[in-house]
Amino acid sequence: MPIGVLKLFTSPHKKDLRALRNILGFIPGNYSLYRLALRHKSMAIDTHKKGVKNSNERLEFLGDAILGSVVAEVLFKKFPYKDEGFLTEMRSKMVNRSHLNSLSKKMGIGDMIDYDAKLNNQGNKNSSLFGDAFEAIIGAIYLDKGYEFTRHFIINRILIPHVDIDQLEQTESNFKSRLLEWSQREGKEAVFELLDEKSHGQSRLFTVRVLINGEEMGTGQDFSKKNAEKNAAEKACLALNILA
Amino acid sequence: MPIGVLKLFTSPHKKDLRALRNILGFIPGNYSLYRLALRHKSMAIDTHKKGVKNSNERLEFLGDAILGSVVAEVLFKKFPYKDEGFLTEMRSKMVNRSHLNSLSKKMGIGDMIDYDAKLNNQGNKNSSLFGDAFEAIIGAIYLDKGYEFTRHFIINRILIPHVDIDQLEQTESNFKSRLLEWSQREGKEAVFELLDEKSHGQSRLFTVRVLINGEEMGTGQDFSKKNAEKNAAEKACLALNILA
Repeated sequence: MPIGVLKLFTSPHKKDLRALRNILGFIPGNYSLYRLALRHKSMAIDTHKKGVKNSNERLEFLGDAILGSVVAEVLFKKFPYKDEGFLTEMRSKMVNRSHLNSLSKKMGIGDMIDYDAKLNNQGNKNSSLFGDAFEAIIGAIYLDKGYEFTRHFIINRILIPHVDIDQLEQTESNFKSRLLEWSQREGKEAVFELLDEKSHGQSRLFTVRVLINGEEMGTGQDFSKKNAEKNAAEKACLALNILA
Repeated sequence: MPIGVLKLFTSPHKKDLRALRNILGFIPGNYSLYRLALRHKSMAIDTHKKGVKNSNERLEFLGDAILGSVVAEVLFKKFPYKDEGFLTEMRSKMVNRSHLNSLSKKMGIGDMIDYDAKLNNQGNKNSSLFGDAFEAIIGAIYLDKGYEFTRHFIINRILIPHVDIDQLEQTESNFKSRLLEWSQREGKEAVFELLDEKSHGQSRLFTVRVLINGEEMGTGQDFSKKNAEKNAAEKACLALNILA
């Protein structure tokens, strides 16, 4: 019996290890990394080291980067004739917080997260708790097993079974449409206003704001007017809590 | 003589291959990837495939992600007691366009880029040409040689010789200070104004704008007022062309 499997019977954490094995499809090497990845900041432990509290936020930073790389490569290879604007937009659809939250729940990571139960009572539906832990787990896998392993894990255990890239391509997850649909549903008026347009050599920088029933809910700037509107809409979606 | 070295004498691109070997420290496997990485969009070639023009933009998308991952890991390990806010800020100092532009020039990549000379005549000092090609080269190395090779390349050939992380940590590359320094130098008045403050559960969303001599040059939103100001300052630096 390989030593990894032995741990499932002998480790003091055997219950957790078995749950992780079921979720991840492999037996964690360094258990404490995964435990840390599942520790939300509301349960941070004071490490007594220079005032740093131990939670999954650092691992999330790392995992976010690794996930971004793997998804970038997958899209780069899957869409050889699409430009970088398309690739960037597809990636943001795949790794946005609400998509990661739902992936995290689908995979059963949610049930393993340590967090302060009070958080849940506030009815904060858009909590990024799940997506954060998901990214932190990716960070833990990377430190535990290296890039190639993590890349295969992301592709074979997450993207292939859980993410329909072709369907995502069709989905209008554009913030502007989301905001407009929401406004229509709620009987509110959404208006985009061009506030400013500045020349910079060949390009122009656009500043746009979006008003909901006359109240400014977000502004955006970009060298493309469409993107400036999208940025403003994203801020408004955030402010209105309609991202999920 | 290994086959790679043979190419330096027999390939039709031997001159380019030698130049690349000198810059990168290794002999490229797939030459055409590197050539594409050095092709600015102003020199895009029509591939006659679904209207896509071939330039380094797709490779830049990939390289940007790979570079982000490697830098994330380096910082994660170098600063075990720093929180993710610090790590994020350090990374943005390391991979911001002006830093990548200067790295690209230092390494000599700049001289190899194919771009429309007219671009240079516009005196566009902040051109992202060099930084873009730098990232695209990272993307090419990744496709040619894999993650571990690229990771070692970035660490040993770029970060160790060219980037003083400890010094960057001290540098105030914060956009707000940059903007304030610039204003002082130019004898202009920079004012940050809080436009709005909205409650969202426990957090508040701040909207801030920055005025230069009374003219709005950028707005920013964030759940921290400091970051909202930083965002507004970044937009203003962009608009004023003082990022480099």
